[in-house]
Amino acid sequence: MIEDKTPQRTSIAQLGEFGLIDHLTKQFENTQPSTLKGIGDDAAVLDFASKKIVVSTDLLIEGVHFDLAYMPLKHLGYKAVVVNISDICAMNARATQITVSIAVSNRFPLEALEELFAGINLAAQEYKVDVIGGDTTSSQKGLIISITAIGEADEAEIVYRNGAKETNLLVVTGDIGAAYMGLQVLEREKQVFNVNPNSQPDLDAYTYLIERQLKPEARKDVRTLLHALEIKPTSMIDISDGLSSEIMHLCKQSKVGCNLYEDKLPIDPQFISVCEEFNIDSTTVAINGGEDYELLFTIAMEDFEKIKGNPNFTIIGHMTQESEGVHLVTRANTKIALKARGWNALEE
Amino acid sequence: MIEDKTPQRTSIAQLGEFGLIDHLTKQFENTQPSTLKGIGDDAAVLDFASKKIVVSTDLLIEGVHFDLAYMPLKHLGYKAVVVNISDICAMNARATQITVSIAVSNRFPLEALEELFAGINLAAQEYKVDVIGGDTTSSQKGLIISITAIGEADEAEIVYRNGAKETNLLVVTGDIGAAYMGLQVLEREKQVFNVNPNSQPDLDAYTYLIERQLKPEARKDVRTLLHALEIKPTSMIDISDGLSSEIMHLCKQSKVGCNLYEDKLPIDPQFISVCEEFNIDSTTVAINGGEDYELLFTIAMEDFEKIKGNPNFTIIGHMTQESEGVHLVTRANTKIALKARGWNALEE
Repeated sequence: MIEDKTPQRTSIAQLGEFGLIDHLTKQFENTQPSTLKGIGDDAAVLDFASKKIVVSTDLLIEGVHFDLAYMPLKHLGYKAVVVNISDICAMNARATQITVSIAVSNRFPLEALEELFAGINLAAQEYKVDVIGGDTTSSQKGLIISITAIGEADEAEIVYRNGAKETNLLVVTGDIGAAYMGLQVLEREKQVFNVNPNSQPDLDAYTYLIERQLKPEARKDVRTLLHALEIKPTSMIDISDGLSSEIMHLCKQSKVGCNLYEDKLPIDPQFISVCEEFNIDSTTVAINGGEDYELLFTIAMEDFEKIKGNPNFTIIGHMTQESEGVHLVTRANTKIALKARGWNALEE
Repeated sequence: MIEDKTPQRTSIAQLGEFGLIDHLTKQFENTQPSTLKGIGDDAAVLDFASKKIVVSTDLLIEGVHFDLAYMPLKHLGYKAVVVNISDICAMNARATQITVSIAVSNRFPLEALEELFAGINLAAQEYKVDVIGGDTTSSQKGLIISITAIGEADEAEIVYRNGAKETNLLVVTGDIGAAYMGLQVLEREKQVFNVNPNSQPDLDAYTYLIERQLKPEARKDVRTLLHALEIKPTSMIDISDGLSSEIMHLCKQSKVGCNLYEDKLPIDPQFISVCEEFNIDSTTVAINGGEDYELLFTIAMEDFEKIKGNPNFTIIGHMTQESEGVHLVTRANTKIALKARGWNALEE
């Protein structure tokens, strides 16, 4: 469908393991002062002086986390980096380095890996992270991407999941649900393509949703925005697994309850119309969808005036006593207990 | 064969993703002062004060890097950690933390993952590294393990691959080739088992070789040993990919040549007799075998007296001008050009 039909196919076995690694990694340039030694030794060497270091890692598996039928490899490389940087942003830290390990079956020609690494390099440049190491090997089946992201922060800046307090306001960045509906659109087009490979899909009505799914961005700007507003969140988490699930994490670790307001959820008009087209309840998707890579955080009530009306942030609820539980307050003003459905890769 | 036939089988889908992660990671205890926050947030938080940080990562794929027919899961977990720590040792640094990501197909019951994590935890305790994060997800096929190791060192201690000088002595720790022959023995027993599942293998004559393959150790002691001898290597690398291949790496990055002496290669008597049994040339295996996880380093000629006769170290050659090339000097005193055959996962 959207897949690039690369005309040239060079077998990766021709280059050998070391040749392949050299070929794919020579494009990476180190720009972070904290990178003393990048790719090319047994390990990379970093220097963070007085800063604290944050580390996060993610594993992406073909057929579980992505489908190459509609995910172009360059986008996949970009997204794999973004997903990890989002976790660093969720600590209120600044991403500085990544390691990238790849396993591929021999059905992938060199040109496919070049596309993937071009996407990785684009994200590395966009987010100003150095690619300092990794591993490239073969898989028995499909493509596997493992990325570890490293970031830095002053100790006083770091925001954990466990600092939310009763009466804190619950805030989310951007809008939610769009990435999930983008996936539904792509899945539907894949079915259509399987039935009729000559169909020409018109995806104009879905561009925002598809972009949210195929080319998400990490909210590296939030750290700067909050700093300028003189707000330090009391807790923060990224909502890659879905809003509902992440609220449960914050509440559990902070030992608080939460009221989330249905009428406050920030959703895009395109998202609403596509939910209607698919006959899916938009609130259900908005709170359970996942993959939006926005940040969810809590702030002290006193910070309300600083954040009010800011287009980057939406206040969607407030924290309560733990004993009150975690609820969605619907438009009809009824309270429904939230469940951490999240995105359960293991059930699929 | 050696595989544990666990009687109890709990489906991992029952626990869900978060439940599974909680269950498997609750055994990990942080003991490193540099670990401020381990598992349980978007990212771990580390503090190395004035130390430099070293980072290395490896990806292990079932059917490519290991075979569960003869690799017990607990050993596999242990080895996966050791392999990464060996890279940190090769920088002359001290391993302090690891992240562990796992992808499994649903043929693995919970008990299998418990075995794997028990091995990971055993290695973490043995090497005093904190397990500070990771990812657990499903795979389409087989088991995938991705580990990132983090270590610390003073800047002056760190040894790179590119510092070898002409006339430097080439030194290797321990003995070589045994892990490769251990694998040959295990592969042969697997064939026997496939033909006759009731055969009772007698592996007494192979215990050392099998242990080198199934339960290798990283040479964390070398850093201390060299420090006590007041030797700082000029270059260092771990020889997981085979001696020949790693010598080529050192020479290329240091811009020197090398003469390696066949009669100096440290090999175990059991290794020699099993090579004879398999009718394989022991020198070929010793220089190309791989997976020994010993360290290879160069030292100044002046340090010869300090290291001479030390049972931990064997001087196996010396560096030359780059233009002289990289050669094996045989017992018959002929010079054969070395090739970096290494362990090429992509060709298999």
